[in-house]
Amino acid sequence: MTARLCLIGIGTGNPEHLTLEAVKAMRAADVILIPRKGADKADLAALRQSICADVLGDDTARLVAFDLPVRDAANLDYRAGVEAWHDAIAACWKQVLDSTLPQGGEAALLVWGDPSLYDSTLRIAARLGLKVRVVPGITSIQALTAAHGMVLNEIGAPFLVTTGRRLREGGWPQGVETLVVMLDGGCAFQTLAPKGVEIWWGAYLGMAAQIILSGTLAEAGPEIIQARKAARAVHGWIMDIYILRWTGAV
Amino acid sequence: MTARLCLIGIGTGNPEHLTLEAVKAMRAADVILIPRKGADKADLAALRQSICADVLGDDTARLVAFDLPVRDAANLDYRAGVEAWHDAIAACWKQVLDSTLPQGGEAALLVWGDPSLYDSTLRIAARLGLKVRVVPGITSIQALTAAHGMVLNEIGAPFLVTTGRRLREGGWPQGVETLVVMLDGGCAFQTLAPKGVEIWWGAYLGMAAQIILSGTLAEAGPEIIQARKAARAVHGWIMDIYILRWTGAV
Repeated sequence: MTARLCLIGIGTGNPEHLTLEAVKAMRAADVILIPRKGADKADLAALRQSICADVLGDDTARLVAFDLPVRDAANLDYRAGVEAWHDAIAACWKQVLDSTLPQGGEAALLVWGDPSLYDSTLRIAARLGLKVRVVPGITSIQALTAAHGMVLNEIGAPFLVTTGRRLREGGWPQGVETLVVMLDGGCAFQTLAPKGVEIWWGAYLGMAAQIILSGTLAEAGPEIIQARKAARAVHGWIMDIYILRWTGAV
Repeated sequence: MTARLCLIGIGTGNPEHLTLEAVKAMRAADVILIPRKGADKADLAALRQSICADVLGDDTARLVAFDLPVRDAANLDYRAGVEAWHDAIAACWKQVLDSTLPQGGEAALLVWGDPSLYDSTLRIAARLGLKVRVVPGITSIQALTAAHGMVLNEIGAPFLVTTGRRLREGGWPQGVETLVVMLDGGCAFQTLAPKGVEIWWGAYLGMAAQIILSGTLAEAGPEIIQARKAARAVHGWIMDIYILRWTGAV
């Protein structure tokens, strides 16, 4: 296959998160692939379309929308389920690229956040042996720290970026006082002893619907669970992320 | 003090790392403070000036350059030395703000990478009790992963962001297979047993002088030490970063 792929990080939903490099890459691409992921994330597909409209103006002929396969959540082996799903997406991309760029050229894919962070686009691209260029984008971690006006690390200290699943299954990891928790569909912070822990939480970061909350885990934890439930009911979906820090303060 | 501060992440030296939000914030600021950090980093001050010229055109009257105090490297207590240095910088900012914005207004400071990541600007601002707005920017971590076209995390797995000092003093941290090492002036990866470890390294990321190298730590490690030494001799300074992954492959 002679098509090339440009993976463009577009930030977390604020059209102004786009970098000048991202704008340039969107304008230079022969086609921009717009995957549709199912009805509950319709807001996100619309946001992607609106970002394209901002950047491309009326020149939207190059936008190619297509439906993504759905992950088989019934597969009990999480890792194998993810691998099979990525294979299916790769096959889907190949079909779209073969039909839209039969003579080759560059196809752009807009990636939420940054293509390097808990995103499968690079792994899927590797399956097709495509030549790939990456344009970095603002991540939800950065949108979170900016919204709270906070520094992620303590001076000279490390931090761990992990997932809700890991936190729930393994508890607080040894040797590190700051955690960033991503991909947490179920408020895994509830499984921790709250004493001495602070939390900085955000949902829909960068978007008009952005909510942030922070405080001691004992006090802010229950508020976050409540706010998250209410927001999810309103929007039909939620994307959130949080930072935990062991401060030892009682 | 009635001045407000806007901390603008500007990425790692590629003017196209600027986000649309950063461009807008630079244009909206009443003054843009340009700190000078000493002769060996003159390249960086020049780059900052050139980014401003790209964004502001001839409208450079609002640029205010000033000299930063130098950290007392003779202070053997690292933490106390940093705190005293930050106090001195805060006093310096106060002087500049009092003279340039006596009636209040917004001063912008351009921060390499992102203000949330191993950067002291937010801590210094907190000393003055200023109202602060943060505009996130592309970090060197993202510039590194984009340059290598790699995903930072393994599927669903955590990663630790740490410093050269920590790696040298503490060895490979427990329970994590991917490390991002920042602020390493001395190739701390040399202190590890190289077997089973891969490295992805980059210097001057995003700039014309960008160099990247990767491979097994056993093979690429010595190449990196050599390349780093040579580049430093040419430029008079170096900023680099790397990712280490335990793969267990021999």
